Amino acid sequence: MKGPVVLLTDFGLRDHYVGVMKGVILSRVPEAVLVDLTHEIPPQNVRAAAYELAVSWSYFPEGSVFLCVVDPGVGTARRALAAVIEGRFFVGPDNGLLTLVLRRHGAFEIRAVEAERFSLPGASTTFHGRDLFAPVAAEILRGRPLRDFGPRIEDPVLLPFPEPEPVPGGWRARVLRVDRFGNLILNLSVRELPFGSFRVEVEGRRVPLARTYAEVPEGEPLALIGSDGFLEIAVNRGSAAELFGEDPEILVLKE
Amino acid sequence: MKGPVVLLTDFGLRDHYVGVMKGVILSRVPEAVLVDLTHEIPPQNVRAAAYELAVSWSYFPEGSVFLCVVDPGVGTARRALAAVIEGRFFVGPDNGLLTLVLRRHGAFEIRAVEAERFSLPGASTTFHGRDLFAPVAAEILRGRPLRDFGPRIEDPVLLPFPEPEPVPGGWRARVLRVDRFGNLILNLSVRELPFGSFRVEVEGRRVPLARTYAEVPEGEPLALIGSDGFLEIAVNRGSAAELFGEDPEILVLKE
Amino acid sequence: MKGPVVLLTDFGLRDHYVGVMKGVILSRVPEAVLVDLTHEIPPQNVRAAAYELAVSWSYFPEGSVFLCVVDPGVGTARRALAAVIEGRFFVGPDNGLLTLVLRRHGAFEIRAVEAERFSLPGASTTFHGRDLFAPVAAEILRGRPLRDFGPRIEDPVLLPFPEPEPVPGGWRARVLRVDRFGNLILNLSVRELPFGSFRVEVEGRRVPLARTYAEVPEGEPLALIGSDGFLEIAVNRGSAAELFGEDPEILVLKE
Repeated sequence: MKGPVVLLTDFGLRDHYVGVMKGVILSRVPEAVLVDLTHEIPPQNVRAAAYELAVSWSYFPEGSVFLCVVDPGVGTARRALAAVIEGRFFVGPDNGLLTLVLRRHGAFEIRAVEAERFSLPGASTTFHGRDLFAPVAAEILRGRPLRDFGPRIEDPVLLPFPEPEPVPGGWRARVLRVDRFGNLILNLSVRELPFGSFRVEVEGRRVPLARTYAEVPEGEPLALIGSDGFLEIAVNRGSAAELFGEDPEILVLKE
Repeated sequence: MKGPVVLLTDFGLRDHYVGVMKGVILSRVPEAVLVDLTHEIPPQNVRAAAYELAVSWSYFPEGSVFLCVVDPGVGTARRALAAVIEGRFFVGPDNGLLTLVLRRHGAFEIRAVEAERFSLPGASTTFHGRDLFAPVAAEILRGRPLRDFGPRIEDPVLLPFPEPEPVPGGWRARVLRVDRFGNLILNLSVRELPFGSFRVEVEGRRVPLARTYAEVPEGEPLALIGSDGFLEIAVNRGSAAELFGEDPEILVLKE
Repeated sequence: MKGPVVLLTDFGLRDHYVGVMKGVILSRVPEAVLVDLTHEIPPQNVRAAAYELAVSWSYFPEGSVFLCVVDPGVGTARRALAAVIEGRFFVGPDNGLLTLVLRRHGAFEIRAVEAERFSLPGASTTFHGRDLFAPVAAEILRGRPLRDFGPRIEDPVLLPFPEPEPVPGGWRARVLRVDRFGNLILNLSVRELPFGSFRVEVEGRRVPLARTYAEVPEGEPLALIGSDGFLEIAVNRGSAAELFGEDPEILVLKE
């Protein structure tokens, strides 16, 4: 059997929404292994979900089924997708969730799911996570081949993401994401950076480059290459988001 | 073996309370499958838990064991219950948690649990979730028949829930629940509504009826039949709770 | 196989951090059972994590692997530990997380993990939960003996915890922890208390001793021995933290 099923939504944990999706899967596949990636994506923020998915999927085993439901267009004519990329399966609405996964991987197969055929009887128009995507994930777990779900497509929705802006001597960077610790994760990846030969300025203040948070005194800011390979502004035992705000002016300049 | 065990509490996730309940179950049944329904019920709000349970249980397979601990009377003489309703098992305090499940289902068996016999040695007076209800759930998982737990009862505690109030030409509705998206779920179910032939007014403002959130412009309110079968006030890509507050005046009037 | 793996971190649930740790484990041990103890430890608060661990571990079965990542010194020379205490395994940084577990248990074996040997290829300097501790936990699950991980040590980091302060006629107690319900858990355990023969004063106000929350009227404060064996200030159907603040003056006096 395939698995685990990895759930990524903007449903939060206060309502029953995530729980009943799991109930639907376990009703069909009692031995399913279920893992939460996160359910705290800001409501309807497809870009944030696309980012979390992109930095996570490769840590899960082949055969994993990512059940991704951030779905502001639920109930409209937007397509439902079932895809396989590098041995992992992805199920969710066609709204750009896969943008960053696809950007770095050439070989994939994406199917537009025949929604009426795979939905629960009496499916709602507002909760396809429970009524369509969970049943599709269960079918994949049970071994149904991807071609069964519907026609192959080559044009999934792709979303624009902010690119680093060239400025004299370097780039202006943007905050992609603020994490629980107040770290500011930037849109400059280690692949783009001539590490060791640049300096970082946040709101006009030079911030030292470091390898670990503890290299600077407590309460002091630093810049480092974070665990997902992006440049990151942090504060040792503190919060860069509190010190600088969530969208400061950040320059990365060659030296 | 039965299962999964589905946990519903007001314990939140910041403390170890939910974790140790799972530890108690896994100590007895290492292969138990554990699913969180939600732990973010507002503290001691039995009605909110009763609602979440009622709209969720049928999505889980037969043999599921719902472990429900919202228990403001913990340590008092209130009874502990073990019940079976339509093939699912329910364990928790006798305080009305089962009100809405029982309202719609005739066939059930409820037992008053002999607490001292099934509690952990040295059980606390304040955490029966860990010391009594988790052990009972584990025993059910292992196949102990319900009659073993104690005498059959016919008078579980039932709680009143607000009914729609008749007004000239229709009803005044009340908010049952506000979800993570700010949707206002009302106490009018699809069974009571002559769908297609009524209008909805929120704080004197007429709100269009729709089938999906995206049918109205972004930021605009709408009313629809939500995924649990109740009338719901929502805002496309926004929050009805922010627009109208959590308890606005809502009229549903025949046309 | 050993298990479950019990995760305790300060990562919160809004980012992918907890999810990818689980992915790393499932990539190595697909049948692993994963349980969250809590991920809401305040950022970098090692003492809070040490407390949650100490009151929880004994409720989990022998063979459990506690994966504890509250790690302000990540990337520095601080050691990584793998330990076994009373049949349970513990993996995490050497920063005092085990202080309270060790205080009450004599027999243990602690190994300093050879980090480079067990880390993922290309390990980050900032996320050892994913790149080092999760792989070590997976190796333990698969049966690798503890001695394989590195040399035995006898000097794990131990943290001071506030002791009850003797005052004329009794003690001044301190709040160890505030839980989700606003209960104030104090640094006086049932072992130190001559129960039944003392009185409790909070901010100069005498608070009755009780066995359950419901013994006093709604909204009234009480003191009781909480479910973890510590003296606790609570309010029936209310919050002691709201009534008294999170660090009130508390005296426990002999009568």
